[in-house]
Amino acid sequence: MYDIIIIGSGPAGLSAAINAKIRNKSFKIFGNKNLSNKLDKAPKVNNYLGFYGISGKEIRSKFEEHINEMEIQITEERVNNVYAMGNYFAVMVNEKVYEAKTVILATGVEYGKYLEGEKEYLGKGVGYCATCDAPLYKGKTVTIIAYNEEAEEEANFVCELAKKVYYVPMYKGNFDLNSSIDIIKDEPIKISGELKVKKLILKASEIETDGIFIIRDSLSPSELMPGLKIEGNHIAVNRQMETNISGCFAAGDCIGKPYQYIKAAGEGNIAALSAVKYLNLIE
Amino acid sequence: MYDIIIIGSGPAGLSAAINAKIRNKSFKIFGNKNLSNKLDKAPKVNNYLGFYGISGKEIRSKFEEHINEMEIQITEERVNNVYAMGNYFAVMVNEKVYEAKTVILATGVEYGKYLEGEKEYLGKGVGYCATCDAPLYKGKTVTIIAYNEEAEEEANFVCELAKKVYYVPMYKGNFDLNSSIDIIKDEPIKISGELKVKKLILKASEIETDGIFIIRDSLSPSELMPGLKIEGNHIAVNRQMETNISGCFAAGDCIGKPYQYIKAAGEGNIAALSAVKYLNLIE
Repeated sequence: MYDIIIIGSGPAGLSAAINAKIRNKSFKIFGNKNLSNKLDKAPKVNNYLGFYGISGKEIRSKFEEHINEMEIQITEERVNNVYAMGNYFAVMVNEKVYEAKTVILATGVEYGKYLEGEKEYLGKGVGYCATCDAPLYKGKTVTIIAYNEEAEEEANFVCELAKKVYYVPMYKGNFDLNSSIDIIKDEPIKISGELKVKKLILKASEIETDGIFIIRDSLSPSELMPGLKIEGNHIAVNRQMETNISGCFAAGDCIGKPYQYIKAAGEGNIAALSAVKYLNLIE
Repeated sequence: MYDIIIIGSGPAGLSAAINAKIRNKSFKIFGNKNLSNKLDKAPKVNNYLGFYGISGKEIRSKFEEHINEMEIQITEERVNNVYAMGNYFAVMVNEKVYEAKTVILATGVEYGKYLEGEKEYLGKGVGYCATCDAPLYKGKTVTIIAYNEEAEEEANFVCELAKKVYYVPMYKGNFDLNSSIDIIKDEPIKISGELKVKKLILKASEIETDGIFIIRDSLSPSELMPGLKIEGNHIAVNRQMETNISGCFAAGDCIGKPYQYIKAAGEGNIAALSAVKYLNLIE
C-alpha cells in the first residue's frame, strides 16, 4: 500500500513526485521515460520562470536531471483504471493492481479529436485498453490505432488470442511487433458498423475488424476513474487540487487551462502537499 | 494607461511579468531589485522543478537572468494604495499616480507578527506610509520602524517636515539617512498611548513620539486595496486568479498556502493570462 500514486509524468506529475519524495512518503509515479510528448514538441519555452529561451527538449532534460538526482524512478506501465475503494484506491495496470491511500491524477489532455464513430461505438467494439478486453476477441480480428510505442506491447499480447491484429501507428518508430501483425501506415478517418463495429475506414484503405483499440497518450479522466466529477473536458478541483473524491487530487492540463508548464508544476506541488496533509489526517 | 500593473517582484510577480511581456502588453512591475527577501533567506530549494539543490540566492539569480534577457525592469517604488475606479485602477505611489486597466497583486505575506498596540492605534498615530501622512506631523516627532532600506527614503522625506525623526532599523545596512535622524538599534515591543500614540516601548528604551510608521516588506492586502475580498489572511481568488474586483487578479503567497516558489510562479502565469483574456474582452 503506497501513500501516494501519481499518474502522469509531465510537469505536474514530476512536481508532485519531488514533493512526495521530500515529504518522505512512499509513492509510485506512472508515466513514460520520455516524460511528456508535449515537452518534446515545444520549440521554445520562454515563460517557465528561471529558464529563458529554452527548448522543450532542454527543459525535459532539466526535469530528468532533477528526478535523477532525487532517485525518482518512473514506472512505465499503462494505468487503465483507478477505483476509489472507500479508504484506499485500486490502480489497475493491465493484469496488476497497485494500492494507494491517495492518488494524484496528472494525466494531461489530449489535443487530438475523437475519430468519427468513436464515441458511438465505445463499448460496442471500440475500447481503450487492448489487454483488458483481449479475451473478448479470441479468434476475432482486432485493430489497434496507436499513438505511442507502449501500444506495441498491447498488440503483441492481443495477437496471442486474436485471429488477426492490424496495427495502425500514429507515430514514427521501429515497431517491435510480432511478425503476424499487419502494420498499416494510413490515416484513420471513421469507424463504421451496425450494432457493433464492422470497419475502420482509413484515407486510402478499409479494414474489416471486430474490435478497435485506440491507445492515446492519455486516457480521458472520466474513462480512467468512475465517479470523478468532470467540468467541460476537465477534472473539477478546488484551489487545493482536491477532486470530488476524498483522497484523490489532480493537477496540470487535466484540470484546465492555461496549458502551461509552470502552471502545471505549481499545481503538482499543491496537489502533493494536499495529499501529505490528507495522509497526516487519516493516520 | 498601462494594460497591466503588477505589484510584487517575488516568483508570482516575475512570472506574471514575463507572460505580460510575451503577450505584448504594456505593463509595469513594482518591487525591488533584490526581487524577494524570502529568496535571499532560503538555504536550499529542492522542489522547484528543473532546479535541484539550488540555494535561494542562486534561484534568484536565475530569475534575474530571465527578466534581464527579456528586458523587464522592476520599478523600485513603494505602492501605497490601489483604487478600483470602475473601468481602470489608480495605483498610488507616494506623490505619483499610475493608471492601469488591470492589476495583479503579488504582494506576498508577512511572516512577522503585529506589534502590541499596532492595530489599536492604527489611524491614531500608527500608519504604513510615512510620505503619505507626513503633512500631519509637521513640527512633531515621528518614529519609523523599518524592515527594509526603502524606508530610508521615507525617513529622509519626513524629516524635512517633522521636528524629530527616530529610525528603528529591523535590518542590517549602511543607513543612508539625513544626519538629523536618530538611529535606534533596539527591538520594538509595544505601542502605547491614550487616545493617540504617545510612546514606542522598546526592549531597552522608550521613545516619546507622535507618530509611528511601520514599513514592512509587504502591505496587508486589505490595507492596500479597499473593497478587496479577504478570506482569513489571504486575498480570495478563484482558480483563474480572479479576485472579487473585476480586472484585479492576485497570485502567490498573498492568496494562500502552500508558500512555495513553484506554486507562486504557476499562479503568476495564470494571473497574467487571465488579465490578457480580460483585456481582450474589454477592448
